[in-house]
Order: sequence, then C-alpha cells, then structure tokens
Amino acid sequence: MHGERRSYSLREIKARFGGEIAGDPGVEVREVATLESATAGAIAFFANERYLPQLEATRASAVILGAGARDATQLPRIVCANPYAYFARVSDLLNPAPAARAGVHASAVVDGSATVAPDAEIGPCVAIGREARIGAGCVIGAGCVIGAGVAIGAGSRLYPNVTVYHGCVIGERVVLHSGVVIGADGFGIAMDDGRWVKVPQVGRVVIGNDVEIGANTTVDRGAIDDTVIEEGVKLDNQIQVGHNVRIGAHTAIAACAGIAGSARIGRYCRIGGASGIAGHLTIADNVEISTFTLVTKSIREPGTYTGAYVFEPHKDWRRNAVQLRHLAELADRVRALEEKPAKTRRRRR
Amino acid sequence: MHGERRSYSLREIKARFGGEIAGDPGVEVREVATLESATAGAIAFFANERYLPQLEATRASAVILGAGARDATQLPRIVCANPYAYFARVSDLLNPAPAARAGVHASAVVDGSATVAPDAEIGPCVAIGREARIGAGCVIGAGCVIGAGVAIGAGSRLYPNVTVYHGCVIGERVVLHSGVVIGADGFGIAMDDGRWVKVPQVGRVVIGNDVEIGANTTVDRGAIDDTVIEEGVKLDNQIQVGHNVRIGAHTAIAACAGIAGSARIGRYCRIGGASGIAGHLTIADNVEISTFTLVTKSIREPGTYTGAYVFEPHKDWRRNAVQLRHLAELADRVRALEEKPAKTRRRRR
Amino acid sequence: MHGERRSYSLREIKARFGGEIAGDPGVEVREVATLESATAGAIAFFANERYLPQLEATRASAVILGAGARDATQLPRIVCANPYAYFARVSDLLNPAPAARAGVHASAVVDGSATVAPDAEIGPCVAIGREARIGAGCVIGAGCVIGAGVAIGAGSRLYPNVTVYHGCVIGERVVLHSGVVIGADGFGIAMDDGRWVKVPQVGRVVIGNDVEIGANTTVDRGAIDDTVIEEGVKLDNQIQVGHNVRIGAHTAIAACAGIAGSARIGRYCRIGGASGIAGHLTIADNVEISTFTLVTKSIREPGTYTGAYVFEPHKDWRRNAVQLRHLAELADRVRALEEKPAKTRRRRR
Repeated sequence: MHGERRSYSLREIKARFGGEIAGDPGVEVREVATLESATAGAIAFFANERYLPQLEATRASAVILGAGARDATQLPRIVCANPYAYFARVSDLLNPAPAARAGVHASAVVDGSATVAPDAEIGPCVAIGREARIGAGCVIGAGCVIGAGVAIGAGSRLYPNVTVYHGCVIGERVVLHSGVVIGADGFGIAMDDGRWVKVPQVGRVVIGNDVEIGANTTVDRGAIDDTVIEEGVKLDNQIQVGHNVRIGAHTAIAACAGIAGSARIGRYCRIGGASGIAGHLTIADNVEISTFTLVTKSIREPGTYTGAYVFEPHKDWRRNAVQLRHLAELADRVRALEEKPAKTRRRRR
Repeated sequence: MHGERRSYSLREIKARFGGEIAGDPGVEVREVATLESATAGAIAFFANERYLPQLEATRASAVILGAGARDATQLPRIVCANPYAYFARVSDLLNPAPAARAGVHASAVVDGSATVAPDAEIGPCVAIGREARIGAGCVIGAGCVIGAGVAIGAGSRLYPNVTVYHGCVIGERVVLHSGVVIGADGFGIAMDDGRWVKVPQVGRVVIGNDVEIGANTTVDRGAIDDTVIEEGVKLDNQIQVGHNVRIGAHTAIAACAGIAGSARIGRYCRIGGASGIAGHLTIADNVEISTFTLVTKSIREPGTYTGAYVFEPHKDWRRNAVQLRHLAELADRVRALEEKPAKTRRRRR
Repeated sequence: MHGERRSYSLREIKARFGGEIAGDPGVEVREVATLESATAGAIAFFANERYLPQLEATRASAVILGAGARDATQLPRIVCANPYAYFARVSDLLNPAPAARAGVHASAVVDGSATVAPDAEIGPCVAIGREARIGAGCVIGAGCVIGAGVAIGAGSRLYPNVTVYHGCVIGERVVLHSGVVIGADGFGIAMDDGRWVKVPQVGRVVIGNDVEIGANTTVDRGAIDDTVIEEGVKLDNQIQVGHNVRIGAHTAIAACAGIAGSARIGRYCRIGGASGIAGHLTIADNVEISTFTLVTKSIREPGTYTGAYVFEPHKDWRRNAVQLRHLAELADRVRALEEKPAKTRRRRR
C-alpha cells in the first residue's frame, strides 16, 4: 500500500519543508518512529515536555522539534515552528501513498455512460452506475459501489467497500475509508393514521475538497435540499451525520459522534468523540465540544462546552447518583434553611 | 435512482390523496422543495407557525398546509389534515423509486438452489446462498451478500453492500440501507477457566413487513430463539440491536441507539438518538425515550423518559460536575442542618 | 451455515465434556433450546434461580444444571460446575460451524503473489492483495477485501464484506463479522496555518489468536507503532478502537463502546456497552466499566466503575437536571448555612 520508498538527508528535507538544521545535515533517514521505538535510520519528533526522558534516551538518527527545545538534544535535528505538522509532512515523504495504477479491473462493472479518467484506478468488483464521473488519479478500492450520477473529484481515494448513493458530489483529494456510506436516506418519516409514511429523501450529499471520512461513518442525503460537508473537514470513524446537516470548513469530529438533522456546525470546530449535536441548531465557528457531551441548543460563542457525567467506583456512584432524582427537592430544602433563620430572627423579635 | 418523472396538477394530486384545493386546481407541480428554496414548478409544505415568514416569501407554485393555515397564503394550495404526511405522499409521486430492472447481473453469483423471482433485480457482484428466496420485484444492490436459506419478501429493496446472514427472514416492502448487517452472531460468551467459550448463536432475525433500516445498523441473530423486528418499525443509521430483542410494530428509533440483548420494546415507541436500552427489560407501548438516555429498568407506563446530562461552558461544568461525587454527602449535610434547629430549640427550652 | 447435524446421547456428551449424569444417560438430544421453548429432543440449561418456574414446566428432553440445582428437576440431566459454559460446548457440538469448502471461487480476485492454503475457502467476489497469506482452513466470506501483505492465521473465519487493510496481522481461529474494518487510518491530523495536515498512519493492527470481533466494529491501524488486540479478546458490534490502543488478553467489550487512541486496557476487563475510554490512559487488569460510562483517567485498581446519568420521567428530569448547573453554588450555600449557626452562637454569646 505504499509507493516507492527511499532515504532522505535532513538537507533534502529542509529544502522541501523549511525549518533549520542543527547538527549534521547529511544524516539520512528512511522511516519515521516514536522517540521510544526509533532505531538507526529513523526520524522522530518531540513536541511535549512530558517526553523529555524519551528524547534523552532515543536511538533515532534525527529529531524534529521546536525552537524552545533546540538544545534539549545533541542529535541531528530540524528546528521548526510546528514539529507535529512538520513530522506529518516528513512521514508523508517517507511513506508515500501509492499512486493510482491506471485502469479498470476486469471484474469491475462500469456502466457504459459513466466517465472514468484514464489514469484512475478502479479495483476488483467495483460497480459504477450510469453517468457517474470518476476524476483524474482517483483510486476506487475493491467492492466500492458508486451510484448513478455521482461525481468524484480528481485525486480522491475510496478504500474498499465504500458506498456512494446516486447523485452525490465528492470533491478533490477526498479520502473515504472502508464501510463509509454517503447519501443513504435521511430519517424522514411522518406518522399518519397509525403508520409511518416515508418522506422521500431527494437531496444530495455534497462533499468539499480535502475532506477525509473515517471507517463506517455515514452521511445521509438531504431530505429536500443537500447535506453539505465543506472543504477540509475531517471526520473520524463511526460518525453519523443526519440529513441537511452543514459542517463548516476545517472542522474536525472525533469517532462515534452523532449530528442530528439540519444542524449547522461552524468552521474550525472540534467536536469530541461520542458527542451528540441535536437537530436544527447552530454552532458558531471555533467551538470545541467535549467527549460524551450532548448539545441541545445553539452555541453562539466560541469556547469549550462540556456535559459529561464523571465516573467513580460503582459503590460511590450508587450513593451519589440516586440523589440526582432529588436535586430539585434538595435545592428547595436548602432554600428553606436559608429562609428559616430570618423567620426565626423575626419570631425572636 | 429515480423512476419516470412528470408533472401533476393539484387536481390530479387531490384525486389521489384527498384534501381540498384552494386557488387554481390546474396549477402543475413537478418537484418538491422547501418554502425557502422553492422556485416555479415546486410544491412545498407548511406545518409549523415558525416558518410563517418563509411561507409569505416563498416562490413555490403551490403549498400543502393544514386547515388552520388555510388563509395564511393566497398561493394555490392543498388543505389537509396532516400536511407533512401529505407532502411525503406527493414527494413519492414526484420522485418515484425506480422499478426493479428484472434480471440477474452477469457478475452476480446465485446458488443453483436459490429462487429469484423473475422480475427481481440482482445487481453486480451480489452473492446469494443456497436455498435463499428473493421475492417478486425485489432490488438487491451491488455487493450485497444473502446467506443460505434467507427469505426476502416481495417488493423489498436492499441498497448496495448489505449483508444478511443465513436463515434470516425479511418481510415485504422492507428497505435495508447500505452497510446494514442482519443476523451476525449475538454477543454470547461464557467464562470458563480463564477463557471465553463462545455460545453458538442459533436463532434467526425475523423482520416484518414495511420495516426500514438505516445505513450501517446491525441486528444480531438470536442466541437460541429469534430476534424480532415487527412490522412498520423504522430504524435510523448505526443502531445496534442485540440478540433476542423484540421491537414492537411501528416503533421508530433514531440513530446510534443501542438495544441490549433480550430487551422487549413496545409498539409505537419513539427512541431517541444515542440512547441505550439495557438488556432483559420491557418497555411498554407508546413510550418515548429522549436522546442520550440510558434506560436501566423496565418502563410500564407510556410517557417520556429522560436522563441526559446538561451541557454548559467547560469552566462552569468543571466546578459543578466535581460536586456529583459529593452529592450523597451534600444531602447528608442538608439533613443535618435541618435537624439542628430542632435540637437547638430543644436545648433552648 | 451449519455443518452435519446428528443426535447425541447424554452418555456421549458426558464422554466429551465431563460432568455427571442424573437420570437416563441414553436420552438423545439433537438441538438446544431455552427451558421455555424446548420440545422433545431438545436440551436446555438452568443457571439462574429466577427461571425455576420455567425449569418446572419445561418440555426439554434433558437439562444442564449446577450441583446446587441437582434435584430441582427429575428430567434426565447433566450436573456440572459451569452450566452456561457446558451448554455453550453442547450447542457447538449440536450446531457445528460448517467446515471450509476448499477452493477459491471463480469470481474471487487473488493476486498472483498471495498465498492461499489449499483447504481454505475463498468466497465470491473476494479480493486478496499481493503477498497476502491466508492460513489453513480459513473461510473468507463473499465480498471481503484483504489488503496487500495481510496475514490471516489458520482456522479464522471472515464473514462477508469484511475489509482488512494492508499489512495487518490476524491470528488463528479469529472470527470477524460482516462490516468489520481492520486497519483503517487512525485519526491523526495536525493543524498548520489554518489547514489540517494528515499524519500518515504507518503502524499496523495485530490481532491475537481466538479473538472475535462483532459486526461493523472498526479497529484503526497504529500511527507509528501498532494497534494490538491480544489473544482471546471478544469485541461486540459497532465498537471503535483508535490507533495504538492495546487491549489485554481475554477482555470483553460490549457493543458501541469507543476506545480512544493510545489507551491501554488490561487483561480480563469487562467494558460495558456505549462506554468511552479516553486516550492515553491505562486501565488495570480485571476492571469492569459500566454501560454508558466515560473513563477520563487511568484506573489502577480492579473493581467496577460507573458514571451514567439515571433516567426518570421527563418532567422530573427537567426539574432536577436544571440544578446540575447550580451544584457548585448549592454546595457553597450549604457550607454557608453550616457556618452560620456558629456565628449566630458567637453573636449570642
């Protein structure tokens, strides 16, 4: 799954990504590693004081670190503003994603009216519906099913067993991991005379450029208008995005979160794992939602919001949690106590 | 993915679905829209006072609304008892699901002992096991895998990449969205001498007519007896239904809910998203469970039940949540305060 | 989906699994059942006093029970130390998983450099990448996709539509249910100048022997080092395991749980459904986490830990939950009241 690998000197790396070299610029690295697991030939990064002992003990050939840590090691090193992001780029250089192997596998089923770029790779047992368009350099993994009229932009990669329903639009350089389902029907039902009537879901899902979506995440198509994932959004695994949701650019959402229908999430938000966003509300830009938090009303101000129960040994929890059902009463009793001395004083007068 | 489309006059629509026309009955509509996004040729609905400004500004050609809102617009309109359900039917008329294209795709693998109705559509790369039976007019999407002995009733539609394990029974007009897994083993394990022993799961999943199940939802087969989803149940995406659960007819469950083994849920319940139902309990008919709520004991009475933590700015949550671990103590202290004045009074006597 | 079935006498069963027979050892059984649903020819088990009425009324031909319940019925019975585990073994005897049908289906696509054991079964529309190795007696269900360099140990069974990314290692006798995704990229992103930079995920997933993983569960590959699932671990459906997690041997995790990156979970833990384990923490051996509980810091001692909100009728919850936002203030007010009598007394002096 990796392309051609080779070694790079720190000098070559600096030429690509900037920063400053301290120590021997000719040192060659061929793989990334953690400080702890590194051996000769590896480059690691240091971005957190907590790992100072690991930095001191590392057997890496070179390290990426920030200006403040410049002298924390004498190993050959690259000093830069954002060591973690720099490391990400070096790792991508050392572990290049394999280029698309142009061609449609013999077992793939591509409708005659679909358009597949000549340099795209279409894997085994893929099905591509009528009038679908697969852009230049795309990789469509084995077992993917691409519905009628779907458009996938250049350089996108679908890992195996992804499903994209009819009519959805996927940008450029998008990554969809296995088991992702884009464009299934939103949950639209109307009760009538004792039976649910299905509300046809006729909108689409529109996904911007540079979006990545984790394994088994589902993004429902719009009921009438579209569900929209703006550019640069990063979704982890097993997230559910309801119909007509809009997720603003560069927002990141951790695994197992659920976004109910018609919620509008701002740009550059960070949404914690297993959190929930109720439907039909608005979250401002730059909002952070903590893990396990249910957001039940709109958030207008940037900041961090939390609503998770704290855990404790079960026997303590048992004693404490039972009081949750008496909180209002407890507050009333405290109020009564506060009022009593006054009355008592009054009575004493 | 849509069948033949055409325009309909309000007169034709009324002839099919009833209601009353106000304004020109000859107005033709060809698509549904929201009040806000509608343009000429579209029909929208109005069911919530909150959208009165949108109703006043809409460019829809016609509107569906209730008797109370009859005069809220002068546009051609259909007045009916349940505008949302009426709209659902009109949308289905204007956006008909495509009929099955009879036939088995050349790349599908159908066991010689399986029975496929002549008018059913079996997509590319589908696998159908021995003695399975696919009913009239079914559509089995690309990449679906249907186990041995499975029966699927007439008019059902499986979107791509659905898996149905051996022996499961699926009713008529059932819709299963992509990534759904029906009949995987329930979580049955017995600890014995330091190792888990698997308890074979020999029951089935039995799904009634008119059930719809959302993307990546999983319904486990029974351990011994069956797991049962009664008719008309609607399950959203990424729901987990454990072994031997029974879900009563016409119950609707929102995304990401989890139903533990052997729970029995009544008819016409509404279960909120990301809620949890513990195992081996019973929930009455017409019960509503709120989002993010864990139900840990049986519910005998209809009504709405809730147990979600409220969210707030993180710094406030921090101060408040720490008190959860002292609630029992706090209650004790209040009790002590309540008893003190009495003693004090006694001492004063 | 089941192998050759036949009847067994209690005598034969005892010869295989031990225990003691009370009543006629020649009684033959051919299927397992619950006490309630059993008919002639069935064997059931009794492990919970609560089901005594069912034991008394059962029509089973034989029962498995513990020494304490030896005389609770006069039916032919097997008395043993662990009736549930004994039942599991009897059920496996009566419902044998079908043996692999040796051979590669004509529609499967196996890279020429891959190695498939001659007695392995490779189903329809399976894709196996270069240099992958499939061990003896494996069953790879229809639509599975096995990445380059993957190794799967002897006797493992992948149900249909499982995806295993490149380079992952799967032990012997492992069971992966449909929709499982092993080795998708972990959620590694670095913010740089207003855009997320992807951190390549170059570790693997390594799964030990005798692991079972439920439908639609996802296990992410390591960012640099590996994600590790040790032997005998049992994961239910729709669980998310983040990158670089390590799950200790024989730990069992219920459905919908989420384990964030780099968490280390001990051996013989039991993790409840829909619980969450935060990243970069350590959980000791033999820890039990309750359903719906978020673990936010390391747990060093065995025991049960809980943090779930209790549910109640909505109108009661409304009154009580609002007080959560005033808990710190309430505690302050109680402290003030506790201090007041002292002052009052002082004033009185």
